[in-house]
Amino acid sequence: MNILVLNAGSSSLKYQVIEMPSQHVKCVGLVERIGMEDAIFNHEIDDEKHQEILPILNHEIGLQKIAETLLDKKIGVLNTVDEIKAVGHRVVHGGSKFNETVVVTQEVKDNIRDLFDLAPLHNPANLTGIEIAETIFTSAKQIAIFDTSFHQTMPQEAFQYAIPNKYLSKHKIRAYGFHGTSHKYVSEKATEYLGEEKSKNIITIHLGNGCSMSAIKNGKSIENSLGFGPMNGLIMGTRSGDIDQSVIFFLMKKLNKTVEEVNTLLQKESGMLGLTGFSDLREISEKAEKGNEDCQNALNLAGYRIRKYIGSYAAILNGLDAIVFTAGIGENSTIMRSLACENLEFLGIDLDEVKNKIRSKEIREIQKSTSKVKILVIPTNEEIEIAKQSYQLIK
Amino acid sequence: MNILVLNAGSSSLKYQVIEMPSQHVKCVGLVERIGMEDAIFNHEIDDEKHQEILPILNHEIGLQKIAETLLDKKIGVLNTVDEIKAVGHRVVHGGSKFNETVVVTQEVKDNIRDLFDLAPLHNPANLTGIEIAETIFTSAKQIAIFDTSFHQTMPQEAFQYAIPNKYLSKHKIRAYGFHGTSHKYVSEKATEYLGEEKSKNIITIHLGNGCSMSAIKNGKSIENSLGFGPMNGLIMGTRSGDIDQSVIFFLMKKLNKTVEEVNTLLQKESGMLGLTGFSDLREISEKAEKGNEDCQNALNLAGYRIRKYIGSYAAILNGLDAIVFTAGIGENSTIMRSLACENLEFLGIDLDEVKNKIRSKEIREIQKSTSKVKILVIPTNEEIEIAKQSYQLIK
Repeated sequence: MNILVLNAGSSSLKYQVIEMPSQHVKCVGLVERIGMEDAIFNHEIDDEKHQEILPILNHEIGLQKIAETLLDKKIGVLNTVDEIKAVGHRVVHGGSKFNETVVVTQEVKDNIRDLFDLAPLHNPANLTGIEIAETIFTSAKQIAIFDTSFHQTMPQEAFQYAIPNKYLSKHKIRAYGFHGTSHKYVSEKATEYLGEEKSKNIITIHLGNGCSMSAIKNGKSIENSLGFGPMNGLIMGTRSGDIDQSVIFFLMKKLNKTVEEVNTLLQKESGMLGLTGFSDLREISEKAEKGNEDCQNALNLAGYRIRKYIGSYAAILNGLDAIVFTAGIGENSTIMRSLACENLEFLGIDLDEVKNKIRSKEIREIQKSTSKVKILVIPTNEEIEIAKQSYQLIK
Repeated sequence: MNILVLNAGSSSLKYQVIEMPSQHVKCVGLVERIGMEDAIFNHEIDDEKHQEILPILNHEIGLQKIAETLLDKKIGVLNTVDEIKAVGHRVVHGGSKFNETVVVTQEVKDNIRDLFDLAPLHNPANLTGIEIAETIFTSAKQIAIFDTSFHQTMPQEAFQYAIPNKYLSKHKIRAYGFHGTSHKYVSEKATEYLGEEKSKNIITIHLGNGCSMSAIKNGKSIENSLGFGPMNGLIMGTRSGDIDQSVIFFLMKKLNKTVEEVNTLLQKESGMLGLTGFSDLREISEKAEKGNEDCQNALNLAGYRIRKYIGSYAAILNGLDAIVFTAGIGENSTIMRSLACENLEFLGIDLDEVKNKIRSKEIREIQKSTSKVKILVIPTNEEIEIAKQSYQLIK
């Protein structure tokens, strides 16, 4: 069965056609700069890359272009669009309504729209993707996979903020947690790999463009370092992560910044970029190695923040079997994994620096043989997870 | 040697006369409602309490009243004001300038004034207290003891936020930490009690009107849960503690609250009050016991937050010898200590619920005999600490 996995952003469409249950990826692609005369269309099949620059003025034209390409005699993978049995849509915010993947109905679409305020950068684009896919892949089931739903098992102590109750009951202000598809995927891989007995208490560390950590108890998420929005917790490329609210009030009241300016500062000008002037971790790591003090300091801060969360989650789990690094930085940055595991022997974490340096696309263990806690690197694959969940739902 | 310990608030003056080095407290007192026609003056000597309602229109009149009382034939303790050899002033914010207690000079006063923006509720009153004391206790040394100075040993990873560097270098935006006098006092008491070998890694938990926790490594503070201001970290009586910055932006942008309204909400209407309608922990505990769900939930949230910080600090310390509860709630609330230690056996913390219920004014251990980590209750005494430090400085 062919499943189209679709991730619609504000000016982009990312897609894969995946055959299930074999998990064979037939093609992958990306439309960028939607809305522009010189939009970029990328399509890859059998390791062959095709690129086209062309005007793609809206998401509908973009998805039409994708559908045409999928039907193309040379670089396509379908004879008719009806061969797509399901379109699996990534939706960032599912609020408290969705604790699992669902088939899209009018009610589901209304709910996604109700959550626009909570994810203004993502949910509107995600809904657009669904509505257009319904008109093109008419015989396919449309499936919504929420980034938040894996974290709906968090207990009240973990999701409620200490503000008046009405903000929770009336305005749904609470911690939701994000990157759920990735945390679910790698925690399940870890359980497959370690066995259920040895994976009761896991901490998953997703370090990519966005970063978050989750505490996973017997397969269920009980904590995530992102909360109501995608800003707090770990230090990210351009996002500050945790910051004292007094700083926000000081910036507004004493430095006369507007709320928009402070929001932009903490989302787009902070994190590794704010500390170093660079946002790419490879560049920062190289400069640190050559003696750039700001870069070394930023790496130290980022590693320290992860260590604090590891301790915090080990306490809440009351045990620790494994920690799992994943996503672009988590899978590839030797230095970040090293700093994240530094001086944590008390918790049973003891990294093997030699194993840490080995590069691979496979699941691997990088702890010393004497380490009580397993340290795993597991490549994430949100597309496969979306295809799996879509297939489960409709098979 | 007589030392006057003075804590000047915006509408209050708290004082003690302490004989050093014996640490004998000769009298204690409090002027409240300064600025009113019906201010309240309390003075206590030899367990005898004296109260007067009278107009005290400013701090100068208040401190004059205190001086007169100290010289009173019946309820006084001095023959002349010159018998006060030092006045130890509590000053909340010492910024990055002061990492120890100092004799007040013009430069010190200028520095305290420079920090008004960082502690608008406290430093102006603290400085007023100093300036008036200089005119009344003319032959005494004026000493400034800063709430932040004990935390000046925090490493950069602990005090820097992940925002552009100029906010640290130019605007001094960083974590300072508070309640330093209390954390110092109880951590030293813990070291005296346990011996140096068994007190390398301590977590001190100050739970009073304000709440904060510190990680103490070999006697030095390396973390405090309060940061730039006195709002984040633990859940307090009316303060929210940690909250996702996205919530602040949502309240302002979507619910149209002003920055002042959000500040007031998070400082004065949140925390235990926001979750329950009550801010007194005894009342909340009693109602929880009688089945009030909001009260039980608030206690759960507060305990959970403490547990997360215990884990976080145990990780950063890379070891844990003892945790210390102190201040009003920490010393007296059986339920809060119980919730703060729940399900932490993985970290070696195992509370004895029977010992936890014993009331005492002495240092006591409340862990099970099998607990690897000592759980101590140590009454704090910021006045004695201020007197000690003042005496050390001038003797």
